[in-house]
Amino acid sequence: MIKGISTAGIGGFASLEDYIKKASQYGFGAVDTNNVGELRKFIGERGLEGALAFLQEHNVRIGSIGLPVEWRQDEARFRSDLTKLAADAEAAAQLGCTACCTYVLPSTDHDAVRFMAVATRRLRQVAQVLGVYGLRLGLEHVGPHHLRTAWKNPFIWDQDSFLDWFEAIGEKNVGFLYDAYHWYTSEANVEDIRRLKPEQIVHVHLNDAKPVPVADALDNDRLYPGEGVIDLAAFLRTLKEIGYKGVVAQEILTKEKPEGSQDDLLRRSADGFAKVYQAAGLE
Amino acid sequence: MIKGISTAGIGGFASLEDYIKKASQYGFGAVDTNNVGELRKFIGERGLEGALAFLQEHNVRIGSIGLPVEWRQDEARFRSDLTKLAADAEAAAQLGCTACCTYVLPSTDHDAVRFMAVATRRLRQVAQVLGVYGLRLGLEHVGPHHLRTAWKNPFIWDQDSFLDWFEAIGEKNVGFLYDAYHWYTSEANVEDIRRLKPEQIVHVHLNDAKPVPVADALDNDRLYPGEGVIDLAAFLRTLKEIGYKGVVAQEILTKEKPEGSQDDLLRRSADGFAKVYQAAGLE
Amino acid sequence: MIKGISTAGIGGFASLEDYIKKASQYGFGAVDTNNVGELRKFIGERGLEGALAFLQEHNVRIGSIGLPVEWRQDEARFRSDLTKLAADAEAAAQLGCTACCTYVLPSTDHDAVRFMAVATRRLRQVAQVLGVYGLRLGLEHVGPHHLRTAWKNPFIWDQDSFLDWFEAIGEKNVGFLYDAYHWYTSEANVEDIRRLKPEQIVHVHLNDAKPVPVADALDNDRLYPGEGVIDLAAFLRTLKEIGYKGVVAQEILTKEKPEGSQDDLLRRSADGFAKVYQAAGLE
Amino acid sequence: MIKGISTAGIGGFASLEDYIKKASQYGFGAVDTNNVGELRKFIGERGLEGALAFLQEHNVRIGSIGLPVEWRQDEARFRSDLTKLAADAEAAAQLGCTACCTYVLPSTDHDAVRFMAVATRRLRQVAQVLGVYGLRLGLEHVGPHHLRTAWKNPFIWDQDSFLDWFEAIGEKNVGFLYDAYHWYTSEANVEDIRRLKPEQIVHVHLNDAKPVPVADALDNDRLYPGEGVIDLAAFLRTLKEIGYKGVVAQEILTKEKPEGSQDDLLRRSADGFAKVYQAAGLE
Repeated sequence: MIKGISTAGIGGFASLEDYIKKASQYGFGAVDTNNVGELRKFIGERGLEGALAFLQEHNVRIGSIGLPVEWRQDEARFRSDLTKLAADAEAAAQLGCTACCTYVLPSTDHDAVRFMAVATRRLRQVAQVLGVYGLRLGLEHVGPHHLRTAWKNPFIWDQDSFLDWFEAIGEKNVGFLYDAYHWYTSEANVEDIRRLKPEQIVHVHLNDAKPVPVADALDNDRLYPGEGVIDLAAFLRTLKEIGYKGVVAQEILTKEKPEGSQDDLLRRSADGFAKVYQAAGLE
Repeated sequence: MIKGISTAGIGGFASLEDYIKKASQYGFGAVDTNNVGELRKFIGERGLEGALAFLQEHNVRIGSIGLPVEWRQDEARFRSDLTKLAADAEAAAQLGCTACCTYVLPSTDHDAVRFMAVATRRLRQVAQVLGVYGLRLGLEHVGPHHLRTAWKNPFIWDQDSFLDWFEAIGEKNVGFLYDAYHWYTSEANVEDIRRLKPEQIVHVHLNDAKPVPVADALDNDRLYPGEGVIDLAAFLRTLKEIGYKGVVAQEILTKEKPEGSQDDLLRRSADGFAKVYQAAGLE
Repeated sequence: MIKGISTAGIGGFASLEDYIKKASQYGFGAVDTNNVGELRKFIGERGLEGALAFLQEHNVRIGSIGLPVEWRQDEARFRSDLTKLAADAEAAAQLGCTACCTYVLPSTDHDAVRFMAVATRRLRQVAQVLGVYGLRLGLEHVGPHHLRTAWKNPFIWDQDSFLDWFEAIGEKNVGFLYDAYHWYTSEANVEDIRRLKPEQIVHVHLNDAKPVPVADALDNDRLYPGEGVIDLAAFLRTLKEIGYKGVVAQEILTKEKPEGSQDDLLRRSADGFAKVYQAAGLE
Repeated sequence: MIKGISTAGIGGFASLEDYIKKASQYGFGAVDTNNVGELRKFIGERGLEGALAFLQEHNVRIGSIGLPVEWRQDEARFRSDLTKLAADAEAAAQLGCTACCTYVLPSTDHDAVRFMAVATRRLRQVAQVLGVYGLRLGLEHVGPHHLRTAWKNPFIWDQDSFLDWFEAIGEKNVGFLYDAYHWYTSEANVEDIRRLKPEQIVHVHLNDAKPVPVADALDNDRLYPGEGVIDLAAFLRTLKEIGYKGVVAQEILTKEKPEGSQDDLLRRSADGFAKVYQAAGLE
C-alpha cells in the first residue's frame, strides 16, 4: 500500500513539481490533487514524456483527483460541470492516475429519497465518463455524527448502505474512498473491511481521531496518523489482508491551520505513517 | 387505446377462456392477470397455436401480468422469487403480452433512502429478465394521501420523482403503469401527461374517484369510470394526444364487493368506458 | 414529420442565421449541421434567449448534429475526441436539438469481429455522454453495395443486424439514422419499416436513386427527392404510419457540385419534398 | 490458489458426495460440475445446512458450474434455456459457488460480425441473471488452431479481443475462464497474464500439451499437468503474482478415455498438480 499525501494537513505548494519533490523527500509515493489544472500545466510545461519521467524519477504517482463535478445541486450545474470531466480525466489518465474521488454528506436539504435516485443516475454518468479513461470513482462515506443532522434530511453514511448504492449505480468502476476517520466514526470494524473485495476500494484516507466519545468526533478536528485513538494498525493490516494495493493518503482536516513549517508537517506526517505502518507490520 | 379489464371490480372467472370470452362480449380488447399460472394452463390445454387463435378469434389480448416477484422485502425472498420470473415472462411473451406491472407504495417501514438504492437495483434486475422476453416493466405510482403515512417513512409518489427513478433504474423497458386514480390523487394534470413520451407508459389503469376532497380519497374506495369526479375525458384525450396506443384497463378497488352479477358489472364497466371514451372524442 | 435540409445538395451558408433563414424561406422546419462550432457562435452572438427566439421566429429547429467523435480509429483518438463531446452536446441541447448522428461503413480494414466489440463499447460511451444532455445517437446503416467491398472485411449494413447491434450497445437513446437511399440499396421494404417502433428512429434522410440496378447505385450519386426510382411515397407513408414524428432531412451526396444557384437548389429540394409528401398523402 | 478437478480426465462419479470425497482424499479443494441437477439433489437430500457442512468437512468447494444456457443458436432456444438459469444460479450460490463458465469457439457458421453483436447481448443477459445470485460468468477463449477453421467464419480467440469483448458486454461479473491449454495455443505469455487484474479471472483450467508444434496441438489431445510442454510453473506463478486466489481446476480432454482406474487418474492428477505447484514455488 502506497503512502500518499494531500495538501490537507500539509498546506499548498507553489507548483506540482514542488509537491512531488516534497512528497518524495519525505518518503511518500503519491500525491492527491483537487486541481486538475495543475496536472495540465505540468504536462504542458514538460511534455507528457517529461512529466512522466519526473514522476518516475521521484517515485511518486498521482494518487487521486477530486471530482470536478457538482453532482449535488441542480441539473444545469451538473450538465455544465460534466462538460469538463472528460478532459480532466484524460489529463489524469495520461499521468497514470486511476482514481477520482468525491465525498457524500450524510444529510441533505433535498428530499433524500428522490435525491438518492437523482444522485444514482448522476454518479453513474460520472463513472461512465471516467471509465472511458480508465479512472475509477471513489465515493467517501462520511461518518461524523454531527453531520447527520447538519442538513434537513438524513442520507446514508454506513458501509452497507454504500455497498447497496454501488449496486444501484451499477458501474464496475465505482467503489469506496475508504477513510479511516469515517470508518471509525461510522463505528465500523475490521470485520467490515474483511467483507470488502480489494476492487471495491478505489482510494484510502488515513488520519486519526481525538480521544472524545465517537459521537462527538468532529469532521474538521482530525489528528495525524498515530496521534489519536483510531486503531490504524488494525485498519491498515486488514486492508493489506484483503489484498488492497493502492494508495493510502493522509487527509488532515482541522479547524485551525496546523502549527509548524511545511517541512515540520511533512515530517510529522511521515513519522505518523511510519508508526502506524510498523504497528500494522507493514514495514 | 385498447379497452381492457382486470378482475378488480368484475370478479374472478372460472377459466382464462371465460375471462377472455366475457371481455370480448362486452367490447373489451384486453384482459390483465396476476396469475401467470392460468396463462400456462391455457397454453398447455390448447397448445400455443390454439391459444393464440383463441385470443385472435375473440379480439382480446393479454394486457399485462402482475409482477410475480416480491421486491420489497428481504434479499433471499427476492432471489427466490426471481427464479420463476423468466418462465413467467416467456409464457406471457408467447401469448403476445408485453407488459408486467407492479405498484410502489408511497411509504415504507424500511429506511427509505437505502431502500431506494436497493429497489433501484432489484427492479433493474427484474427489468433485465423481462427484457429478454420483450416485456416492459410498468411501475405504478400510488397517489392516495393516507398511504403516505401508512408506513413509517415516506417514499415517493409523484410523477417527477418516478421519472428520476426510471433514469436511476436505467433500463429502457421501464415506465409507468399510469393509473387515473393515482394521477388524480397525486394532483397531477394534463400538462404532466404531456411531458411524457408514449414509450414511458407501459400500461394504463382507468377508474374514478368519489366527490370527496382529494386528500381524503381512499385507495380502496374507487368508482367505475365516468361515475366520479376525475376528468377522465381529459386524461384519455391527452394520453391519445401524446401517442399512447396501448391498453387502458379498468381496476376498481373497493372495500366491499360491488353489487350485482358479473354481467351487471361488465355492463356497468363497458358503459363507463363508453361514456368517458366518447367524452374524450375517442369513439 | 418535419422537412429538413443539410448542406449536402444545397451548399454551405455564410452563417447559421443565413442557413436558418433560407430553410425557413423554402418551407423547411429543420437544419442539420456537422459544425457545432457554429451553434456555439450563434449562442455566443445572440445569447441563448436570442438564439432560441431566432429559431422560433423562423419556425426552424436544429435537426441533428454530426457526431464529432472518431470512433473508428485508435483508442487515443477516440478518447481525445470524446473530451469535447459533452460541451457540443450541451450546446446542441440548449438549442433544442435532440439528435446526434454518425454513419457506419459496411466494410472495414479492421478485424471486423473484434471491431464490432470495440465499436459497441465506444458507441455506448458516446451514447452515455449524449444522454446526459437528452440527445439521442442515430446510427446510419449504409446500403450501397460497392462500399461492402471498399475495405478489407465486410461489416454490417442491413436493418436486422443493426437492430441486434442496438441491443448489444444497450443504451435506450440509440437508434437509426434511417436514410431512404440506404433503405433502398440495402433492399429493405415497407414491412421492414413497419417492424420498427418510432423511438428506434432518431433521424431520417431523404434522397433518391438513379434508375440503375440497385447493386450499382453509388453512394455519392444521389438524386433529389422525387427525381429517382425510390418509392419515397411508401417510405414516408410508412414512417408516418408507425408514428415517427421527427425530422426528415435531405442529404444529396453527388460527385459534382449540383448545377444552379443555392436558391435554385433550395427550390428544387422544396419541390421534391412537396412532390413526395403529396404522393405519400402527407400534405 | 485452490486445486480443483472436473470429471474431464477423471471420469464421472456415482454421486456428488463421492465426487467431493474423492477430491478431498487426493488433496483437491474444489470440484467443477456441468450438472446443476446434482447440486440440487445434494441440497435436497441433506438440507442446505447439511450440504454445506459436508463440503466444509471435506474442505471442498464447488469450483464452478457449466453455463446451462445455449447462447450460440437461435433466440427461442436461448430464451427457453434462460428460464432455468436463475434457479440453477440460486442452487449454486447457496452452496457457495461463485463461478459459471462457458467456452467460446474460435469460429462459427453464423455471420461472425452480427453474431458478435447477438452474443454480446445474450451473454450480458446471462451475466445479469447470474449477478443476482453473486455468480460471475467466465468466458473461455479457445486457442487450438484447428478450431479456427472448423466452422465457416473466424470468430475471436486471443486475450486482447476477449478483453475488448468484456467491455462490450459491460457487466462487471464477466471475465476469463483462463485455461493453460488455450493460453499456450493462443501463443500468449506471462506478460499477457501480468496485464490482467485478478478480478478479470473467474476460473482457471490446468492441463498440458504434447510436444508438437503449437499450431498442431489439438483441443482434445491434452495431457495431465506436468506431463507436457506448457510452462505451467510460469503460468501458475504469474497468476499468483497478479493476485488470483481462486480455483485452478484440471480439465483433461482426450480422444480416448485415459487408462487406469479412477483412483489412478486422481493420483496422476494430484501428482501433476504437486509437480507444477512446486515448480511454481507455490508449495
